[in-house]
Amino acid sequence: MQVKVLLNEDEIPRQWYNLAADLPTPMQPPLGPDGNPITPDMLAPVFPMNLIEQEVSSERWIDIPEEILEILYRWRPAPLHRAHFLEKALDTPARIYYKNESISPPGSHKPNTAVAQAWYNKQFGITRLTTETGAGQWGSALAFACSLLGLECKVYMVRISFDQKPFRKTMMETWGANCVASPSTETKAGNDILAKLPDTPGSLGIAISEAIEAAVTDETGKSRYSLGSVLNHVLLHQTIIGLEAKKQLEKIGEKKVDVVIGCAGGGSNFSGLAFPFVQDKINGAEIDIIPVEPTSCPTMTRAPFAYDHGDTAMMTPLLPMHSLGHEFIPPPIHAGGLRYHGIAPLVSQAIVEGLINPRALDQLESYQAAVLFARTEGIIPAPETSHAIATVIQEAKKAKEEAKEKVIIFNFSGHGLMDLTGYEKFFSDQLVDYPLPEDELQKSLKSIENLPKPEAAKSGRW
Amino acid sequence: MQVKVLLNEDEIPRQWYNLAADLPTPMQPPLGPDGNPITPDMLAPVFPMNLIEQEVSSERWIDIPEEILEILYRWRPAPLHRAHFLEKALDTPARIYYKNESISPPGSHKPNTAVAQAWYNKQFGITRLTTETGAGQWGSALAFACSLLGLECKVYMVRISFDQKPFRKTMMETWGANCVASPSTETKAGNDILAKLPDTPGSLGIAISEAIEAAVTDETGKSRYSLGSVLNHVLLHQTIIGLEAKKQLEKIGEKKVDVVIGCAGGGSNFSGLAFPFVQDKINGAEIDIIPVEPTSCPTMTRAPFAYDHGDTAMMTPLLPMHSLGHEFIPPPIHAGGLRYHGIAPLVSQAIVEGLINPRALDQLESYQAAVLFARTEGIIPAPETSHAIATVIQEAKKAKEEAKEKVIIFNFSGHGLMDLTGYEKFFSDQLVDYPLPEDELQKSLKSIENLPKPEAAKSGRW
Repeated sequence: MQVKVLLNEDEIPRQWYNLAADLPTPMQPPLGPDGNPITPDMLAPVFPMNLIEQEVSSERWIDIPEEILEILYRWRPAPLHRAHFLEKALDTPARIYYKNESISPPGSHKPNTAVAQAWYNKQFGITRLTTETGAGQWGSALAFACSLLGLECKVYMVRISFDQKPFRKTMMETWGANCVASPSTETKAGNDILAKLPDTPGSLGIAISEAIEAAVTDETGKSRYSLGSVLNHVLLHQTIIGLEAKKQLEKIGEKKVDVVIGCAGGGSNFSGLAFPFVQDKINGAEIDIIPVEPTSCPTMTRAPFAYDHGDTAMMTPLLPMHSLGHEFIPPPIHAGGLRYHGIAPLVSQAIVEGLINPRALDQLESYQAAVLFARTEGIIPAPETSHAIATVIQEAKKAKEEAKEKVIIFNFSGHGLMDLTGYEKFFSDQLVDYPLPEDELQKSLKSIENLPKPEAAKSGRW
Repeated sequence: MQVKVLLNEDEIPRQWYNLAADLPTPMQPPLGPDGNPITPDMLAPVFPMNLIEQEVSSERWIDIPEEILEILYRWRPAPLHRAHFLEKALDTPARIYYKNESISPPGSHKPNTAVAQAWYNKQFGITRLTTETGAGQWGSALAFACSLLGLECKVYMVRISFDQKPFRKTMMETWGANCVASPSTETKAGNDILAKLPDTPGSLGIAISEAIEAAVTDETGKSRYSLGSVLNHVLLHQTIIGLEAKKQLEKIGEKKVDVVIGCAGGGSNFSGLAFPFVQDKINGAEIDIIPVEPTSCPTMTRAPFAYDHGDTAMMTPLLPMHSLGHEFIPPPIHAGGLRYHGIAPLVSQAIVEGLINPRALDQLESYQAAVLFARTEGIIPAPETSHAIATVIQEAKKAKEEAKEKVIIFNFSGHGLMDLTGYEKFFSDQLVDYPLPEDELQKSLKSIENLPKPEAAKSGRW
């Protein structure tokens, strides 16, 4: 009984897949403060030009530099597991597969893009990267990548997480990064907030503002900002996951995938597995492709396709995406990586095109699924990953009802060893669900009411 | 540039290697309370007979049941990494390799024997296993194994660790185990201690006593005790590490290994990698084989080869091993897995035979090595593993001085993600070394003065 499929280093995909090249209608551009499309030059103080080129590229395949592959080889290609034991527990005719991204040294899929971004920045002569982190998964991945490439790394970590999860800070420091609580006294953005709200727990929006400011105000010109999700080039770097998965399925003679599932906060984990399958769907394959989000932060399932800022402080360009409004503050669910008011524009466009079908789930159902997974397959999932697993279980039960031998694949985006507090609360019945009330949704959406609308929204397709 | 060597599932070793079959002089038997060798029957209330048979076996090769392999396939065969980046940082002509045992779901090599022990117990009709754990690595591994095999698992966790590391308890609970602080009020041993010392932080010795009592007093007869190191059958199960490593080295044409290194607390991690190479040495190969321990607990480098109890409460048989005395209480170094007064009898015998050459290291040197490793190879090591890495660095520097292209291999026994407190203290200069003063050693050795002496010790070979 084969429980996992490996690839050797020489079988690793050597190009990333760019969904933008295949979408039926072209992507709509980000807009500047004046409402006009922004130009690559306008992004130059924030990102290096080689990554900006990837961000706006419409090439279908983009070569992965050999030096990036050599760093990824430390843990890639990642194994594809057959979930025999979960299948047995569910008594389902479905064959369930998962890519195991938890075996990367920081424990998630995030290093796939962290390594690529650090490498391109280094190529461009950059010596220092700044970023924000919430629960710490992204900050850890960038610290790891910068360490291996010899770049400085500065992380602004949301104050409440900084206090609650000191181990994430230590992890980043072990990889040589400097991590401070946000808001900090090191930036104007941080000081402004602290003057008004000295006891604020911080937010991802504030931390992004600090990290961007720290990059653009560095007088040496050798600092840039790095983002862990949402943007096109970030999603691009993650497609190595799905491309590997396809090779692995082919290797064991699995010809047809019926359901593809990934949890989605900013969208990079979902896209990494799913976009190569979205291409198949565009080319005529029948596949149900499901990004999963929490009911407490229902960006894809209940928010409109709109133009909105990526951060609370409105420092970023307007992005065409489903958004709950940049003032939305998600409830304190444990899946910190899914607490984001927007979603990647490429994911949004795929929703608008009807290529993918988002679903929302409660956290209690997700924790139940996570515990079943840990006790059958053996790996303790991150709280974000658990949302995908709960959806897999729903689909596996459906396959049983329909008596269909479906092939289901999902991305096991990370392990939960750094997030055991959530499990502790789950076992002691301290967790609750937070489905978003309609009036709160409407109130939050007011912040985007007067912003420009994307074409698809205007045409009434959403 | 190849950075790791994989094996497919069908290349996994199908037999364990038993060093006892090849040692130049036969192992000396454990002794009962009367000073006479114990018989298998005397161990029957504690261990199932199929494991007792392995414990006393002198067969060189023992088949690994297919059902055990099917569980190990979740993460095995484990990758063999070439430490290109550490080599570069050290500017050494040595080629450094490491087996990456940190990719198992509990994060260490411990599941190799946990799965085997749980399976043999289940075969024997046992439904519940009891054990002790210090820092939590072993308890987690047994909880994991019992979960996958459908056994109950009860873990007595040393009180001070239970309080300091609540995440380990949550990890075990996620896998369905019941974990209580030791001393507990659930056993006579625990109550006796609590009556005398209500505020005791506990010890591994007390926890072992509780776990054994819980197994032997279960009136259903369906409970047994499980140990994570020291015993012959435990070391046997770990030899899959070294057997895989040899296949992997062969695959890349690496014909001669010069140095083999592993950290050693009870000895199972070291033995797992090293024993298959000890066999080569017995057969004439020139290999330097180095088990590494902390200077604060110098069992192999400064203690005599003696007969001693495995626990503080003297409940276990007398084992022929190097021992600091069963009353020895190691200082609070962070490598909890290396804080043990004795060492596996098979390791002791190999020392006495001159087959392996133990070394002791300070914890500060180990943490320095761990940080260099994290920043070059990318994986954050467990504090135990760091002792092996520091020794690798010593040997790689020596190879540079001698201008020799040596091949060095070590076991990366586990990641440090559950032990980041030690790194935090290291970075804030709160860690110190605790080399054992000679007078404390002599004082501790008094507890074994009047116990029987093994033959080798009598003959003056030690």
